[in-house]
Amino acid sequence: MASAKDLGERKIIELILECLDHMPDNPVPFGDDVSAVEIGHDKLAVIKADMLVGKTDVPRTMSLWQAARKAVIMNISDLAAKGAQPLALLASIGVPQDLKETDIQQIGKGLNAGAREYNAYILGGDTNEASDLVISCMALGICNKGHLIKRSGAKRGDYVAATGAFGKTAIGLKILMENLSAQEIRGELVNSVLMPKARVKEGMALAQSKAATASVDSSDGLAWSLHEISRASNVGFLIDKLPIAPETEKFAKIHNLNPVELALYGGEEYELLVTIKPDFWQEATRAVEKVGGTLIRIGVVTEEKQLLLKSDGKTIFIDARGWEHFKTD
Amino acid sequence: MASAKDLGERKIIELILECLDHMPDNPVPFGDDVSAVEIGHDKLAVIKADMLVGKTDVPRTMSLWQAARKAVIMNISDLAAKGAQPLALLASIGVPQDLKETDIQQIGKGLNAGAREYNAYILGGDTNEASDLVISCMALGICNKGHLIKRSGAKRGDYVAATGAFGKTAIGLKILMENLSAQEIRGELVNSVLMPKARVKEGMALAQSKAATASVDSSDGLAWSLHEISRASNVGFLIDKLPIAPETEKFAKIHNLNPVELALYGGEEYELLVTIKPDFWQEATRAVEKVGGTLIRIGVVTEEKQLLLKSDGKTIFIDARGWEHFKTD
Repeated sequence: MASAKDLGERKIIELILECLDHMPDNPVPFGDDVSAVEIGHDKLAVIKADMLVGKTDVPRTMSLWQAARKAVIMNISDLAAKGAQPLALLASIGVPQDLKETDIQQIGKGLNAGAREYNAYILGGDTNEASDLVISCMALGICNKGHLIKRSGAKRGDYVAATGAFGKTAIGLKILMENLSAQEIRGELVNSVLMPKARVKEGMALAQSKAATASVDSSDGLAWSLHEISRASNVGFLIDKLPIAPETEKFAKIHNLNPVELALYGGEEYELLVTIKPDFWQEATRAVEKVGGTLIRIGVVTEEKQLLLKSDGKTIFIDARGWEHFKTD
Repeated sequence: MASAKDLGERKIIELILECLDHMPDNPVPFGDDVSAVEIGHDKLAVIKADMLVGKTDVPRTMSLWQAARKAVIMNISDLAAKGAQPLALLASIGVPQDLKETDIQQIGKGLNAGAREYNAYILGGDTNEASDLVISCMALGICNKGHLIKRSGAKRGDYVAATGAFGKTAIGLKILMENLSAQEIRGELVNSVLMPKARVKEGMALAQSKAATASVDSSDGLAWSLHEISRASNVGFLIDKLPIAPETEKFAKIHNLNPVELALYGGEEYELLVTIKPDFWQEATRAVEKVGGTLIRIGVVTEEKQLLLKSDGKTIFIDARGWEHFKTD
């Protein structure tokens, strides 16, 4: 019989979902980035849990402070993608026996820093003895019922947009792992891995503008995020202006790497990927710019359920693949 | 420098708490059983996270279905103690690579069963590769602001009461570990370990009655739970009628064990331990009985901050100790 190693993360999640009763009138169906419960007065309590495991999610050069902060950011980013305001987090920590007192303090400080960056608070949690370092965070936010942006609302003709450029984390990780110098672009690339940011202001602004029809964060990679919206909204995409970070272009040129591949399949980036009603495009960009962000139009939603990239005059298929744990192939 | 092994769970939690900013007007201060956020209209969103780690929390003879169910119950029990209605849970699962497909299904079914027993739903979660089996659950409930029962409200003269008798789990665990027969009392004792129940109806009834001044669940053992209320409310206790389960009395007699020790320091029991305004005693018992539960008066709150037990005409001190992970002494 297949074991977890062969099944892969997505199949494991599927197996578990099949065992669960469905809540009637669930405001956010299974498989979206967050879960939610109606709490009256047209409000939703929005919740998200995402677990960071030291051995798979933490590069060797990442400090415990950074790892704990990232464990918070991962959760806040999903609330951001839905337009929910993060209020509070809980952190359950699996503590290896050899962790030192100062290590534990670094974790505490990193958790607090991640939450406070977005005006949220760590309100509680739990610790347990464990073989791996595990930081399992859960975030609670509030959202007006009509504002929450699901994955499933994209319509043909909508614009596809992102809150930033892609391709930095894959290189940042390479620089860290191989201890490359990468001169003046090193800081930006390495920071994309060590100090990810959640697009909370942008997500809240988009939700309030009511311009967005679908949204996810790009933590599983741009290609996979497009695939997620495609699947949930039953649409396709034509990406005609892939936003590749200039640092990525530069590094890729020097090291003979494919910047398109890096931007599409990198993963662990936390930009928002959204679809916008064309008539509301100006309102959407203005709303995001007003809070200090940017919204880059990268393509259009198509009827046929496929992911296409137009680049250098050619149109190619984007694979529905991304970052995935477990699978060893 | 001290490592996690030497520090113990409570010191680790203290270290982390010291790193955290305090949320202004926090409706439930750090160190209570749950956390909460005001969501308007005099309601609180009540949240709790508690992590189950296979190697420390799951006896060998407990099935994965039972372990997953227990991971849910642990969290629901804390909501119950505060009088909050559980609505939804998230489950982040650390999956060892050798876990089989059917194992994963057992976990999914156990999670679902635990939630549905209390009319809640598993709404989402996350899976990750990990060395240990980790089931990190988080529960969300709703509570009227004025109903939530903290640890800190006990007053001298209040009655101390419990929703059931104590001492079963310590023996149940012994029976499982040593594969003892224990004849006709085996089922009840073993079930206390494998199939713990959360006192949701009782907790909700007590909250609505407004008779309770403080409440915790007894998951860390009766003695430690008394100590927690004592510390938070700045009071003491005189326990004059320790409720020991008849199965515990019987087993203890045969095996020459001390039933008082088993009842005080066993842990992993999920009865509620509450303090009740004496004038409201009848209302409190009636409210709990109406939902099919029982409320047993076990003692009284005293001014002097010490824990005393009157038993067989003698008065002895109850140690402020309970079940604790990490510490190896």
